[in-house]
Amino acid sequence: MEQRISLVTLGVADVARAKAFYEALGWRGQEVEQTVFFQAGGMALVLWGRDKLALDCGLENGLPTGFSGVVLAHNVRGQPEVDEIIAAAHGAGATITRSPSRTFYGGYAGVFVDLDGYVWEIACNPGFPLAEDGSITVPDFGPV
Amino acid sequence: MEQRISLVTLGVADVARAKAFYEALGWRGQEVEQTVFFQAGGMALVLWGRDKLALDCGLENGLPTGFSGVVLAHNVRGQPEVDEIIAAAHGAGATITRSPSRTFYGGYAGVFVDLDGYVWEIACNPGFPLAEDGSITVPDFGPV
Repeated sequence: MEQRISLVTLGVADVARAKAFYEALGWRGQEVEQTVFFQAGGMALVLWGRDKLALDCGLENGLPTGFSGVVLAHNVRGQPEVDEIIAAAHGAGATITRSPSRTFYGGYAGVFVDLDGYVWEIACNPGFPLAEDGSITVPDFGPV
Repeated sequence: MEQRISLVTLGVADVARAKAFYEALGWRGQEVEQTVFFQAGGMALVLWGRDKLALDCGLENGLPTGFSGVVLAHNVRGQPEVDEIIAAAHGAGATITRSPSRTFYGGYAGVFVDLDGYVWEIACNPGFPLAEDGSITVPDFGPV
C-alpha cells in the first residue's frame, strides 16, 4: 500500500447545506448525483449523504455523537490568514472551538467545527514547509 | 481559503498499536513525542492520542461510537491491488466491512475499518485518473 490518501469523504446530513458552507469559504467543486467533489491538491474532498456513505461502506449509520476523532488541517503561510479563515468560517455558520492563538509547537492556529461536526484546524506552522503549490513536507525530525 | 488539506489526523487509543497497524500495511513514518507523521503525497497522515487531539481542538473527547462519518479512500491502479491491500489489512487486524466487489460507479473496491474504527475504501476507479505520482484529478463531469 503506497502512502497516499486519494479522497476524504465527509458524510453530511444535507449535501446542499454542506456545499454552501464550503462555497462560503471560497471552495469550488462539481456536484454530480448529490455528491460534491472538490479538487484539493493531488486529492479530493468529497461531500456525500451520511446515510449513503455508511451503506456504501457496509456500516451502520449511527447518529453523529460528538468528536469523530478525525481532524483535517489546513496550513497557511501567515497568521493573518488564520484569523481570516476562522472569521470566514464563523460567518458561514461554523462553531469556533479554539480561537486563533499560539500553539505548543510554536505555531498559530484556530479550530472550527463545520455544520456536520467535522473539525478543521487552520494553522500557520513554521516547522512544516509549505511549497508554492500548497503541498507540505514533513520535516526530518532526526533521531528521536 | 485555498482548496487544500494539509494533514489528516486520526485520534487513536494507542499510538504504538496504531503505528504498528499502518506499518504492517507498508507505511513508514516518524514518531515524535508520541505523534506519528506519515508523508502522504503533498500532505501527511498523523496519528495522535485521541484524548490529546480532542483537548487540542477544544472538544470533549467522547468515546468512539460507531461510524465517524469520515471515509479515507486510497485509489490504486488495478483490481489485484485492491484484493492485496484488503487482505493485508485483514491480516493486520482490520475488520473488512465490504469485501472487494464491483461498485455502482463502474469500479472495484473493498472497505476496511482500522483498529480505532477509521474507515478506508481501497478502490480501483477508472473514472478518476491516477497520475504517476499517485495524485488524482477529479474528472470534468460536464454540465449536470
